[in-house]
Amino acid sequence: MSAWVLPDHIADVLPSEARHIEELRRELLDTARGYGFELVMPPLLEHLESLLTGTGEALDLQTFKLVDQLSGRMMGLRADTTPQVARIDAHLLNRDGVARLCYCGPVLHTWPGRPHATREPLQFGAEIYGHAGLEADLEALLLALDCLKATQVRDLTVDMADARIVRSLLAGVPVDAEVLARVHAALAAKDASELAALTKAFPTASREGLLALVSLYGDSKVLAEAAKVLPSTAPMREALANLQWLAGHLEGAKVSFDLADLSGYAYYSGARFAIYTPGASDSLVRGGRYDEVGAVFGRNRPAVGFSLDIKELVAVAVRPPLRPAIRAPWLDSGTGASELRAAIAALRGKGETVVCALPGHDSEVDEFHCDRQLVHDTGRWVVKAI
Amino acid sequence: MSAWVLPDHIADVLPSEARHIEELRRELLDTARGYGFELVMPPLLEHLESLLTGTGEALDLQTFKLVDQLSGRMMGLRADTTPQVARIDAHLLNRDGVARLCYCGPVLHTWPGRPHATREPLQFGAEIYGHAGLEADLEALLLALDCLKATQVRDLTVDMADARIVRSLLAGVPVDAEVLARVHAALAAKDASELAALTKAFPTASREGLLALVSLYGDSKVLAEAAKVLPSTAPMREALANLQWLAGHLEGAKVSFDLADLSGYAYYSGARFAIYTPGASDSLVRGGRYDEVGAVFGRNRPAVGFSLDIKELVAVAVRPPLRPAIRAPWLDSGTGASELRAAIAALRGKGETVVCALPGHDSEVDEFHCDRQLVHDTGRWVVKAI
Repeated sequence: MSAWVLPDHIADVLPSEARHIEELRRELLDTARGYGFELVMPPLLEHLESLLTGTGEALDLQTFKLVDQLSGRMMGLRADTTPQVARIDAHLLNRDGVARLCYCGPVLHTWPGRPHATREPLQFGAEIYGHAGLEADLEALLLALDCLKATQVRDLTVDMADARIVRSLLAGVPVDAEVLARVHAALAAKDASELAALTKAFPTASREGLLALVSLYGDSKVLAEAAKVLPSTAPMREALANLQWLAGHLEGAKVSFDLADLSGYAYYSGARFAIYTPGASDSLVRGGRYDEVGAVFGRNRPAVGFSLDIKELVAVAVRPPLRPAIRAPWLDSGTGASELRAAIAALRGKGETVVCALPGHDSEVDEFHCDRQLVHDTGRWVVKAI
Repeated sequence: MSAWVLPDHIADVLPSEARHIEELRRELLDTARGYGFELVMPPLLEHLESLLTGTGEALDLQTFKLVDQLSGRMMGLRADTTPQVARIDAHLLNRDGVARLCYCGPVLHTWPGRPHATREPLQFGAEIYGHAGLEADLEALLLALDCLKATQVRDLTVDMADARIVRSLLAGVPVDAEVLARVHAALAAKDASELAALTKAFPTASREGLLALVSLYGDSKVLAEAAKVLPSTAPMREALANLQWLAGHLEGAKVSFDLADLSGYAYYSGARFAIYTPGASDSLVRGGRYDEVGAVFGRNRPAVGFSLDIKELVAVAVRPPLRPAIRAPWLDSGTGASELRAAIAALRGKGETVVCALPGHDSEVDEFHCDRQLVHDTGRWVVKAI
């Protein structure tokens, strides 16, 4: 095996894509700052129990583990940033009021989440702690949409559901973890026959409700239909009313519903959303409410937020053109050398890229496209088109 | 042990420092882009042999190792980015001419490099491949100085040496790896008695040269003194002449020499430099020439570059003040609601931070300092001082 072969689902990011990712990163962070979200940078490595508490088995299996030689304890490489941000809100900031936090950094996965997914996503996310009302859900959704608009992603669809719908249908039904996982998988796959087999022994209302979910996807008519066919319990009515309210406040956005789909939302406790665009193989953004996530850190605050993978986003965002550079000669000393240095510094100070051709490389085709050059003309250095 | 306790030498970065780190990151990347350096993003995880080839034992011990469950092979978390960038230059870009590459991302260390060091530095660096002449060394040095100036770090001292000086003194001396490591350590510690003991059996010229190095530190007089007392071999003359040339081209910078100090420069092959500022516990920047670094990837190109840890830099850079935000009320509907949304969007579009007070949190003291607010005044939303 050659020394330059990378592990599967691990890749270098080369200059033109890296430049675009860096631009997207700045757009996303600046958009979040515009809403008053404060940046935090949790570490890549933590004690395993801090990373995994309350997050479910899927995250455990996705987390790389290693031993800390300083302490002999198990550490994990973060596979998701949300539990870390919940820890920061609960323990380090410890505010009484609302905390708006955002982050941007790599996460690592032991196996790719989907067939062509990377094992090293670049996760950006924003979270609101301390407000239980729907206004926080709406702010998270509007920020997610603004983030995608800032990165020039068009033709967005917001897909919504609520974790309380399935949960209320299963309330009081004795079901073990393995069957529960299969029920969730059958719902996500809209596999009615599998679902019918799994729920054979369930109470009628629960069974019929779960089977009805399979066809409850589509536009806003879904909510009216759901109110008719699903059991009218208090949490069910609240979940449907919340979805109605949120959808009604998304002016101009295309909204759909898929009430059966809760895959990938293990720690969600209320409304959840995903944002899609044509051309992306999966949702670009996932978010929603996860009020339980900080409990293990001793402060069970209301929480809502979203995250996205910038490496997924870069594939569908419009790549801005590279601003051409200016080529300059390399002068050690002699006529005009110090004036040349001053001219180069002034141009760089204005945001221009000035590439000095190193001696012997004057005739190279530059990868950094140069459309102008610095030339000595009647005693001054001037920029001229190439 | 509580779930919120982090491993030793691992820390969260909280909002005000995180904001400053993000600003430094942008300054550094923009300064490098001004010189024509192209951004690359190598992965955090690689096959161990790609990360470690040719880099010495210290990097091996600093590298976290884990098994890839997809392949069963050993992987490492990068402890240094330079070997990855050399791989990208050699294999992926495969250019004939000059390649200027820069990077910015975390690296991880199994143990802290110094008593209070982090195990998760945020490494920024820039490298020039394909030019063997000193002009590339000079460009790397000037860029490093410009980077520190852009981040408002003052009172810089450039300390220089050359890997060929010690190497030429040891040329032809049969010495095993363990003794060699002790010789390097004694040189770095300027421990003349240890050095005298270690070199007892060395040829006289080698022994006397090594012992002379211990006092060859200080200002530019050091080079003249070195030319007198060190053996006048061809590589020695070239190394000293190179240092003279480089120092002579650093207009206005304070330059010192420490010809014995090569600690932490395992793969360096020529001139090396470090940049110091008062208040930092160690050098802020380390760099130099490392022509051998790409050999293992099949293309042994000339290479020169430098790196720094932004988490070290943030401790000595002047923190820019937080730009105060604007507070806005939360309005669901009714008089002026849509005008309010438009006013908020317009302010955010101009780069302002507008924090919407969520219902019930109106009286909170905001962590994001607000010095103005949006108020409804005679039919319009206007910004007024608080």
